[in-house]
Amino acid sequence: MKSRSTSRSRRAPPLGLALDPSSSEPLHRQIGEQMRRAILDGRLKPGTRLPSSRVLAQDLDCARGTVVLAFDQLVAEGYVVSQAGSAMSVAANLPDEMLTVPRTGSPLQRSAVAKPAVARRTRALLAEASPPVPAGPPLAFPTGQPDREAFPFALWAKLLEREWRRPGIEAASAAHPFGHAGLREAIATYLGVARGFTCDPGSVVVTAGIRHGLSLFAEVVLDAGDQAWIEEPGFVGVREALATSGIDAVPVDIDESGFSPEAALALAPDARLAVVAPAHHFPLGTVLGLQRRLELLSWAECTRGWIAEDDFDGEYRYSGRPLPPLRTLDRSGRVAYFSSFSKLLFPALRLSFLVLPASLVEATERIMDRVSVRAPLLGQGALARFIAEGHFATHLRRTRQLYAGRRETLLREAARHLDGLLTIAPDPGGMHVIASPVAKLAPRFDDVAVTAAAAEAGLTVQPLSVCYAGRARRHGLILGYAGTPEAEIERALVKLRDVVLTAVTPSRESRSPLLQTKLGQSREQ
Amino acid sequence: MKSRSTSRSRRAPPLGLALDPSSSEPLHRQIGEQMRRAILDGRLKPGTRLPSSRVLAQDLDCARGTVVLAFDQLVAEGYVVSQAGSAMSVAANLPDEMLTVPRTGSPLQRSAVAKPAVARRTRALLAEASPPVPAGPPLAFPTGQPDREAFPFALWAKLLEREWRRPGIEAASAAHPFGHAGLREAIATYLGVARGFTCDPGSVVVTAGIRHGLSLFAEVVLDAGDQAWIEEPGFVGVREALATSGIDAVPVDIDESGFSPEAALALAPDARLAVVAPAHHFPLGTVLGLQRRLELLSWAECTRGWIAEDDFDGEYRYSGRPLPPLRTLDRSGRVAYFSSFSKLLFPALRLSFLVLPASLVEATERIMDRVSVRAPLLGQGALARFIAEGHFATHLRRTRQLYAGRRETLLREAARHLDGLLTIAPDPGGMHVIASPVAKLAPRFDDVAVTAAAAEAGLTVQPLSVCYAGRARRHGLILGYAGTPEAEIERALVKLRDVVLTAVTPSRESRSPLLQTKLGQSREQ
Repeated sequence: MKSRSTSRSRRAPPLGLALDPSSSEPLHRQIGEQMRRAILDGRLKPGTRLPSSRVLAQDLDCARGTVVLAFDQLVAEGYVVSQAGSAMSVAANLPDEMLTVPRTGSPLQRSAVAKPAVARRTRALLAEASPPVPAGPPLAFPTGQPDREAFPFALWAKLLEREWRRPGIEAASAAHPFGHAGLREAIATYLGVARGFTCDPGSVVVTAGIRHGLSLFAEVVLDAGDQAWIEEPGFVGVREALATSGIDAVPVDIDESGFSPEAALALAPDARLAVVAPAHHFPLGTVLGLQRRLELLSWAECTRGWIAEDDFDGEYRYSGRPLPPLRTLDRSGRVAYFSSFSKLLFPALRLSFLVLPASLVEATERIMDRVSVRAPLLGQGALARFIAEGHFATHLRRTRQLYAGRRETLLREAARHLDGLLTIAPDPGGMHVIASPVAKLAPRFDDVAVTAAAAEAGLTVQPLSVCYAGRARRHGLILGYAGTPEAEIERALVKLRDVVLTAVTPSRESRSPLLQTKLGQSREQ
Repeated sequence: MKSRSTSRSRRAPPLGLALDPSSSEPLHRQIGEQMRRAILDGRLKPGTRLPSSRVLAQDLDCARGTVVLAFDQLVAEGYVVSQAGSAMSVAANLPDEMLTVPRTGSPLQRSAVAKPAVARRTRALLAEASPPVPAGPPLAFPTGQPDREAFPFALWAKLLEREWRRPGIEAASAAHPFGHAGLREAIATYLGVARGFTCDPGSVVVTAGIRHGLSLFAEVVLDAGDQAWIEEPGFVGVREALATSGIDAVPVDIDESGFSPEAALALAPDARLAVVAPAHHFPLGTVLGLQRRLELLSWAECTRGWIAEDDFDGEYRYSGRPLPPLRTLDRSGRVAYFSSFSKLLFPALRLSFLVLPASLVEATERIMDRVSVRAPLLGQGALARFIAEGHFATHLRRTRQLYAGRRETLLREAARHLDGLLTIAPDPGGMHVIASPVAKLAPRFDDVAVTAAAAEAGLTVQPLSVCYAGRARRHGLILGYAGTPEAEIERALVKLRDVVLTAVTPSRESRSPLLQTKLGQSREQ
C-alpha cells in the first residue's frame, strides 16, 4: 500500500494515481476508480482538500476535461464534495465505520467471522477428486455424442438465418411455455409417422434436455417425498432430475427382460411413477419385453400411477424391428413420452421434448407459468423447418447407415484387439456398446480407474459402475461409437488395449501412483 | 366396441380393421396398430387363427406386401405367432392377467385405486383462479419488454448464419459449463468499458436468465435452510430462485435509500446472503445510497457473507449519473454481479450472466458439472460477435434515446389523462414507471383487480402488490413503456383511465361479476 506522503509530492503521480493510456478503460474512469479506492482505503481521509482539476490534469499529462469528468462522477457518487469556488474535497460525511476497514462493536459485525465461506455441500464437492478430463479433443469413444461432420450445418445456418431475419412475434418474444408452436406441430407429425402414435401438438412440451422434462413431469404428478421406480443401472440424469424435484427414487434391478414391475412392487409398493427406457435401456441396451410392458401399463391403470417412457435413442436400430413405444399401448393416459434432439443432431442444440398425457396439459401449463426454466427458443423455429421440410428424416437415414458401419468396425476390431481382455455384447441399437472384462479379469477390473487411465491416454470412455445408484453389480466400459470416425476406431482400440493391460496387471510397479490412488478410491466406494 | 362377429364377416372390414388411405400413417402401420388393439382389448383372443395375408389384403383392398409387413411387425412384437405353413394366429402365451383389463388379486393391483392422480401442489395450483390474459398482442404496457422493432434482426440473422455454417467444436458440442468462451470474453471486456470493473472472463458464467444464475449462486454459497435477505418489495424471480435452492428468503422493507443492512440484521442476524438491486430497485426504482453500499460491503467482509448484485436494467438511465456497481467497491471478493441480455435485446434470447467472485470459480465449475441446466448455446457465438463488433453499444445508445422519448411521452400524457386518478413518480432510469392511486382513491384501489380489468380491455399492466413477499404496503400499476410505441401510449392511457374509473367507482352495479370476485379474492390475500 502506498503511503499518503506519495500523494502529496508534486512530481510523483498525484494522489497515488497512475494512468495507463494503452488501457481500453477511458482515462477519466481510471482517475475516478483510483481516487475512489484511495478514499475507501483511507489513503485519502474525509475532508482532505483535493488539487484543482487544472493542476491534476497537468500532473497527469491529460486534458483538464478528463479530470473534470472524473470529479463530476465522484461528486455524483458522494465521495467528493465541491466547496466554495471550484475547490474539491473528500466528503466529510463518510464516517469511518462505513468504510470497509472492520471495526469491532458495530452492529454490522455482531455475528462475527466464524461462518463458513461456502455451502457445506460445495465444500464436500471440492474435497472430492477431480473427474478425469481427456487431454485432447474426444475422438473415441464419447457417449451420447453424434458425429460432428454428419450434421448439415450449412443448411442449418440458412434455416436459422431465414427464421431470424424477420422473426414473428412468437419467435422474438416469450412464446407459449411449452415452446414454439411450429416445432410442437412438427414433432407431433413426426411421432405419428416415425414412432406410430398420434398426439395433439398441444400436449408436446419442448424442454431443455430430458432431465428438465422429467423433473417438470415429476413435479406435476408427484409431491416431494413420493417414491418413483428407476432402472438399476440407469441414466444418472434420471436420478438427478428426480432429486431436483424432491422425489425418492427407488432403484429396481433390471434383468434380461428389462425392468420388472413385480420386483419394483416388492421393493416399493407405494411408488407412483415408473421411469423406464423400454425401447433401449441405458446403458445395457435391453429391450423391455411385451409382457413386462403390459404389466407396467396395467399397474399404472389400476393404481393411477404414471409412467415416464424415455425413448432417447429409439431411432437407431440396426437389426430386427423395434417394439412400438409404450405410449402406443396406453389407453388410459398414464404414459408421458420423452425424447431428445441433442443426441440425434448436435449437443449444443439442447432441445428435447415430452408428450404429456392429455389430462395433464392444463396442470403443466400452470406449473410452467410459474417456473423460470424453459427450453431455449432460438433454435426452435429452425428445427421446426428442419423437421417439416424432411431434413430430419434424411439425417436420421444417413446417420443410421454411418453409425451401423462404425458399430460393425468397432465390433470387428474389438474382437481382434481386445481379445482376452474385454468382450462386447453386440447391442442391436443405440450409439454405444458395453465392453465387459473377461471372467478372469473381472475381479481386478475397476472401470473408474480404467476410465481415468484411458483419459490420460486421450481416450474418452465411461465407467458402467457409475450408472448404478447402489453398489455396482458389474464393471465395464461404455464405448460410444457414433461420434468416432471409422479410421479412428482401430487406433483407439489399440490404445485402449494398452490401458487395460496396464490397469489390470497385478504387479504394482507398472502402475502410476495416480492410478493406484484412483484404483484405491473407487474400490472403497 | 365392435363385437367379434364383425371380424368374422367376410364383407365387413375383416378383424374390425378400417384403413384410412388419406392418413399420413402408412397402411401397414394402420393394420398393425389396429390388430394390436384388438388383441389387447380381448376382441382377438389368444390362439385365434388369423386370415391369410392374401385374403386380408383382398378384403382390405391393399397390396399383400402391406399385410405381410404388418404381420412381421406383430410377430416381432410377440403378439402374433406363425404356425405350421404360413398361417398366423394370436399368440397363446399372452396370459389374461397380462392384458390391461384389471383383475383383482394380482400383485400388480395390490395398492388399489384410491391414490390421487396428480401431486397435491398441482391440485392446489389448478384450484386457483386463472391469471388474467390480455386478449390481443400486448402493446401497452408490458414490463421488461424491449421494443420489438428496434433490434437489428437482419444483422442478428447474419451473425447466426456466420456462426453456424461452419461451427467450431465448441459451438457444436457441449462447451464449458460456464458458456461460450468468446461470449465470456466479450462480456468481460464490455463490463470493463461500460460498467467500470475489470473481471477475468473465467469468472463469467452465462446463464439461462437471472433466476437460473441466482439459484446456481445460492447453491454454491448456501446450504438448504440458510437465510438470505431480499428486498421487500422486489422481483418475484428472486424469491422463486431462492426457493428452488431451498433457501429461506427474509424480506426486508426498503426505504427511500433502498435496502437497509441494519434493518436486515435486526430481522435475520444470521443471514448469509443479501440479494439487492443497488443501481435501480425493482420495481420502485430506488438507488441504494453510498453509505448503505459501504455498510453492506462491510457486513459481507466481516461476516464472510455474500452479496448478489442484480444490475438488470442499469444500462437505462435518462438523467443524472449512475453510481458504479457495488462490485467495483468490492475489495474482498464477496459480490457476485448479475445482469441479463434478454431485456436489452429480445426476450427469446434468454441469456443472462453472472460474474463470480474469483474464489468461487472452481466450486461453481464443479457444481455445474453435475447440474443439467445450462444457458442455451445456440445464440452465444452470435451474441459474442454482436458485442465484440460494437453492435451492442450501438443498440443500447439507440434504445436509450428511443425509451427516453417514450418515457417523456408517457409522463406527459399520464399527467393529462390520469389526472386525479393516478400519479407517476418520475423514475430517472429503467424501462417502466409506477402509477400510484391518488390519496383519496388509495383505500379502494386494488391493483390486482385493476390489472384484470385492464387485461380485458387489451392492456397489459402489472400490479405492484404482487412484488411483496408479505402483505402489500402499497398498491399501484407497473407500466412498462420500452416496448410501447409513442403513438400507442396516449390511446392506451385513455383506455386505462376508463378501466381505473370503473374499478374504483363505489357503485357495485357498474362492476362485472368477474371483477367483483377478483377484487374480493385479492383483498383477502
